[in-house]
Formats: sequence, C-alpha cells, structure tokens
Amino acid sequence: MPQHAYSATAMDTTPSLPEVEHQQAHFPEGLTLECGQALECFALAYRTYGALNAARSNAILICHALTGDQYVAEPQPVTGKPGWWDTLVGPGLTIDTNRFFVICSNVLGGCMGSTGPRSTRPDGSIWGTDFPPITMRDMVRAQEMLVRRLGIERLFAVVGGSMGGMQVLEWAASFPQKVFAAVPIATAAYHSAQNIAFNEVSRQAIFADPDFAGGRYWAQGKIPARGLAVARMMAHITYLSEEALTRKFGRKTRAVGTDAEAASFFGEVFEVESYLRHQGSSFVRRFDANSYLTVTRAMDWFDLAAEHDGNLSAAFAGTKTRFCLVSFTSDWLFPTAQSRSIARALNRAAANVSFVEIDTDRGHDAFLLDEPDFHRTLAGFLSGCAEHAGIS
Amino acid sequence: MPQHAYSATAMDTTPSLPEVEHQQAHFPEGLTLECGQALECFALAYRTYGALNAARSNAILICHALTGDQYVAEPQPVTGKPGWWDTLVGPGLTIDTNRFFVICSNVLGGCMGSTGPRSTRPDGSIWGTDFPPITMRDMVRAQEMLVRRLGIERLFAVVGGSMGGMQVLEWAASFPQKVFAAVPIATAAYHSAQNIAFNEVSRQAIFADPDFAGGRYWAQGKIPARGLAVARMMAHITYLSEEALTRKFGRKTRAVGTDAEAASFFGEVFEVESYLRHQGSSFVRRFDANSYLTVTRAMDWFDLAAEHDGNLSAAFAGTKTRFCLVSFTSDWLFPTAQSRSIARALNRAAANVSFVEIDTDRGHDAFLLDEPDFHRTLAGFLSGCAEHAGIS
Repeated sequence: MPQHAYSATAMDTTPSLPEVEHQQAHFPEGLTLECGQALECFALAYRTYGALNAARSNAILICHALTGDQYVAEPQPVTGKPGWWDTLVGPGLTIDTNRFFVICSNVLGGCMGSTGPRSTRPDGSIWGTDFPPITMRDMVRAQEMLVRRLGIERLFAVVGGSMGGMQVLEWAASFPQKVFAAVPIATAAYHSAQNIAFNEVSRQAIFADPDFAGGRYWAQGKIPARGLAVARMMAHITYLSEEALTRKFGRKTRAVGTDAEAASFFGEVFEVESYLRHQGSSFVRRFDANSYLTVTRAMDWFDLAAEHDGNLSAAFAGTKTRFCLVSFTSDWLFPTAQSRSIARALNRAAANVSFVEIDTDRGHDAFLLDEPDFHRTLAGFLSGCAEHAGIS
Repeated sequence: MPQHAYSATAMDTTPSLPEVEHQQAHFPEGLTLECGQALECFALAYRTYGALNAARSNAILICHALTGDQYVAEPQPVTGKPGWWDTLVGPGLTIDTNRFFVICSNVLGGCMGSTGPRSTRPDGSIWGTDFPPITMRDMVRAQEMLVRRLGIERLFAVVGGSMGGMQVLEWAASFPQKVFAAVPIATAAYHSAQNIAFNEVSRQAIFADPDFAGGRYWAQGKIPARGLAVARMMAHITYLSEEALTRKFGRKTRAVGTDAEAASFFGEVFEVESYLRHQGSSFVRRFDANSYLTVTRAMDWFDLAAEHDGNLSAAFAGTKTRFCLVSFTSDWLFPTAQSRSIARALNRAAANVSFVEIDTDRGHDAFLLDEPDFHRTLAGFLSGCAEHAGIS
C-alpha cells in the first residue's frame, strides 16, 4: 500500500552519539549562575587559530549558534564535516588567522566538551536534567573567564550570528571595556514570541519521545533520537526561506518503496521531505537532547533590554565599542527589523555603529554560507577597526 | 530543579477521541480514486443550513480546511465549541441561511463521519493505514456525488479557505458548468515546498510516537497523542503571524511548578508556550492521526496546473464561473503572491475574476476570524452574483 511505502520511509535515527576528546580549560573556581545556583567547577572546550601577537591585542572571539560548536575552521571530530565557518575563518580569509588570533569555545550548557547536561558531576553522576538553567549572560561570563585564562585583557572583536549574535550583544553590554569591536549578525536583542513558539514545539517533540525518559536517557543507554530529529527538522525549516526551498526543491519528487509503488506519484516523496529527514537523522548523532533544552531556554530567556529596565540603549550607555550589525533580507527567524531596532538603540547611546542588510534569498542560514557581500562587509569593518586598534 | 518544573509542564494528552453519531449520506456505488484503487462504498458526513428553493438554485457548498469539519454553523458535537464559521454563516449573516441553502461535508479521508482511515471496512476491520491515498480531486468528486444526491444540478457558489480553497479551485476546474460562483480564500493552486516541509515535520512527529504502532493504534486501544499534539502545535504557529503572536503574547510569562520555583523566571513558562500546549492537547481529542496523514498528503500532492500540463490557465479554459479571490496581508502560509498567480491565470483564461487582499495582522487564521473587510467583500460578491443568478 502506498501509505505503507510512505511511512516505511520514516527517519533512520540510530542512537550513536560518539564520545570524543576535546581541548578544554578547567575552572575549579566555579561560577555562580544567574539562577543563583553555583557551578562548583566547570570546563569550557575551545579551539584557537592563528597566534596571539606580542601586545595581546589581536584576539577575536567567535560565538557559535544554537547547534554550532568550537570547531570553526577545522573538521568537526564527530561528524568529520568541515568547520562551520571555514569559508570565513582561516589564513588569508575574511577573518584572517595570519593576522588575528581566533578563539571559539563551546557554550556552557553545550554538548561538545563544555560543562553541560551531558557532563559528569563531581560525585561521578551525569548532570542530565539536574543541570541548572543557563542564561546568555552565564555563557558570556564563562567565556570571559576563558579569555582571561588565555592572557587576554581586551578582545579586538567579538563576532557571532544568531544565538552567537546574542552573545556578542551580551559581551558588549557586560564587558564594554573588553570589546574593541562587536559584530552581531542575524540576531536580536530578545527572542520573539514566534521564535519562543518554535523552540517550544521542538522541546515538546523531545519530551514526547519515551526514550527521553524524563531526561534520564543516559542511565538507560538510550537517546530520544526520534523527538530530537523532529525538533531539528522543524528548526531547519526556519533557517531557510520559502524562496530558497522553492529554488532548491520546488515540488520535485523521488521514488521510494517498491517499483510498483514508485510507478505512481503516491509512491514518491518530495525531495524537500527527503532532505529534512536527512537533517533530522544526522543531527541526533552529534547533539544531546538535554543540551538542546538548556540552550533553547537560554535563547528564549534572552532579553537584553529587560536586564536594563526595558531600555536597550541603557545596555550600551557610554560604550566605546565599534559595532557592525548585519542582517539578511530573507531571514524571517531574525528579521532585519530586529537588527534595525538594535541599531536605533545604539544610535541613542551615541555608539559608533554601522548596519548592513545583505540582499539574499537564503534565509537565516545565509550567515553560515558563502555570501560575498556579507564577507566583504565584515572584511572592511575588521580592517578599518584593526587600523584604529593599531593591529598590523 | 527548574528544569524539572519545566518538563513537568509537558502536555496533557489523554487519548480520548470520542465516538459521535454524524448525519451521513451513503454511496454504495463507490468511487474509483485517482490512485486507481476503487472504494467499493463510502459515506460522507454532512450538514445543511437553510432551505433549498423551488428552483434548486440557491445552494452554497462550503469546503472545510485541513482540521475543519461539517459543523460550520452549529456547535461541534465532539468539542462542544461553536461552529468554525458561525460568525459568517447563519440567518442574516454574510452567508445568509435565510437566503441560501448551505451544505458542508466532512472530506473523504477525514475523521468526522466521512469514510476515512478511522472507518470500518466492508469486512468489519478498521481501514487504518490500508486506507488508500486520497487527492483533492477525489474529495471533490465525492462532494459532487453528495450534491447530486441532494437533488442539486448546479451550485450557486463554492466557498472555502486554505485546503477548502484548494477544493474550490478543483471544483471550478473539474465541474465548471456546476459552479456559478467560486470563492477561493487564503489558498494556492499548488502546495509550496515550505508548506510540504511543515506537513512532513508534522507527519514525522506522528510516526515518531511509539503509540502510532505503524498506524495500527486502534487495534491496541491507543492514540499517538503526543506526536499528534506536537504536529498541531507546529502547524498552529504557521496559522498565525509574528505580529499576532507578539500582540497576543509578546514575552509574557506565567508561573509553573512550586512556589519556590515560580519565584524566579526559571520557574515560569512563556504564555505563548502555554497557549500552544493547549492547542496541542485539545486537538488530539478530536482528530485522528491517520486522517491527518491522509489529508496532509492530499494537500501536498495538490498541483492544479500539473493536472493541465503545467498550465494553470488551461484548468479554467472557457469557464463561465465568477471568481472572487481573497488573501490576507500577514498570511505567510498561503501568501498573497499565491492568490495573485491564480488571478493572473484566470485573467489569461478571460474569466470573470475579482481579487481582494485584506489588510490584517492575524495571519492565515484571519479567514476563520471576524474580519469585517473580508466579510463585506464576500457579502458584496455573493449579493452581486445572486442578482445575476436570479436568486431572490
């Protein structure tokens, strides 16, 4: 039966999250989180590229997005895929590692080597759902400890897109004297009701998976792979644009099931379906469900103005940081209007700010892709700032 | 722990789809479906409002959307909620049942009394996943048999929004001589890649629920309630607009969990989350998962131009039907551009067509809501057509 053929193509979600060693910095001094709970000790996994100059003035911190990690410019050890920004970061590239010392750390609460729900507690048990709630500010405060550990007093720049852009804004607000230049890309100063709604559906998809086992799936040797895959599939739609989906897939189909079934269009799936299933099933091999819950909550809670009595300008009062805001025309997850309102708040704070909207049909994902206008914008801004900062 | 408080608020999805008697028309003559399979016999559940005039010329067929049903203008017997268009259809209302005879049937493949996956086969077993795939044209051909059964040769009008609008277009293309006036609202002549993608995520959420049991959940006395609820939550976001979500919910929160937990924002949920959970958990009490799969596939397959060698105009060649297309500015599921391309195709076919875009921030859902401009547009169009058709 065609319906059988169709449902037989449900995703392959073999649970097989591999264990990989990551380069870490350990912080036995711990950190008191915004929720009031103290993390007695914690680790951040991180990678660096290029060399710190004698003046320690050429460091760029890159902040990753929700499902990103520290492997910016080298193959990701779990998936073997190229670094997520390897067309942007490297020798001679837009963020030139011959000139700049690039740092990227896995966020606190993440699952790629930094302390998070997947980590072991001092008593030897797995944190799991006992892991405390983390905020964007907690992530940034942990990063600041790492930056100090690396002997850096002031960052030349903090750069990031999407959730990474939220961290850039939090850095500029919390540590203005430590950020010479800030590049928040495709981001917002607060998470919108629609974005909270999408995150909530993804969380409910995870909760709905019986293998989630109340968050204690590790104890049972299971992963809520089906729920996590559904969460990823839905999120992936929001990273693209209708135009991009139409251009890439339109209504093209491919045969599934038996030859007889495939002979009619009832035995076919649309290519966009097949693509999304692949996105879902590959994601569960590299991401931890409890981390997904922790980090999406941190995004939802993010509201920089609320930390300053509802006044976003106040978050940047007296700032000397130079800002370059970037948005993308077809990004409906973090639309241009969000960046524009940040630019207005920075203007009210008399900050040094430029704002570029890049024309593209590739949606939110554009910040990860080879968008020449975006790369040129970033290169020009960093080059101008480097001159002002006296970096050769 | 706050994370516990949060996950403890997962949805209540008690499986309790009630059995209700519906008014039905039975068709022992059966119907050969587009997939080639013959339904030996089938039933359509339907409701009528008002009275057929002596000339049998005042009938309006209303076509419902994906999760709608035949209870247009009276309480829905399962939920007890008002009819889904009861502000539009009734005595003295926009679709005036003092003047028109209104018919609405549950679609073939549905779960509110028409033959579908939840129905019993001639041999006494439940159809379940053996139910054949259904297309928009199959639904319309079954409706046409019902209309004939009611003694009506020509419908004064066919009206519907969203998937209902697809049926209106299919009616106008398949039975042009039987449709005096057609009102496709917030719809499209084909399902877009993005809409297929959203439907596919909802289907995978259902497949991911172990209680789906390969579609044979009825045999086990179960319902894939969690998967279906997640599907509904996601779909519901696409029915609204970012503006509407911001206006209704913004970043407002409410406390959950214990008093101690609720004392910090970590123990709160956003109101938009709470709203979506309610949407999800109430949906599973009235909708069958296999019907959801069947009907979403029918939407995805719909491509009226493809039925006419890629030429949408050809679908309407020589039509005498009067069309009124309606779209809504903030509808991103069936954006205005889709209605505009239908209008262009109708213009190329030299059809009688008017097209109105209604300014609203309520998204796709606007077609179900009390939108005065929309209601005035529809009233004016129907009144003009009734005069031409000689309906007093």
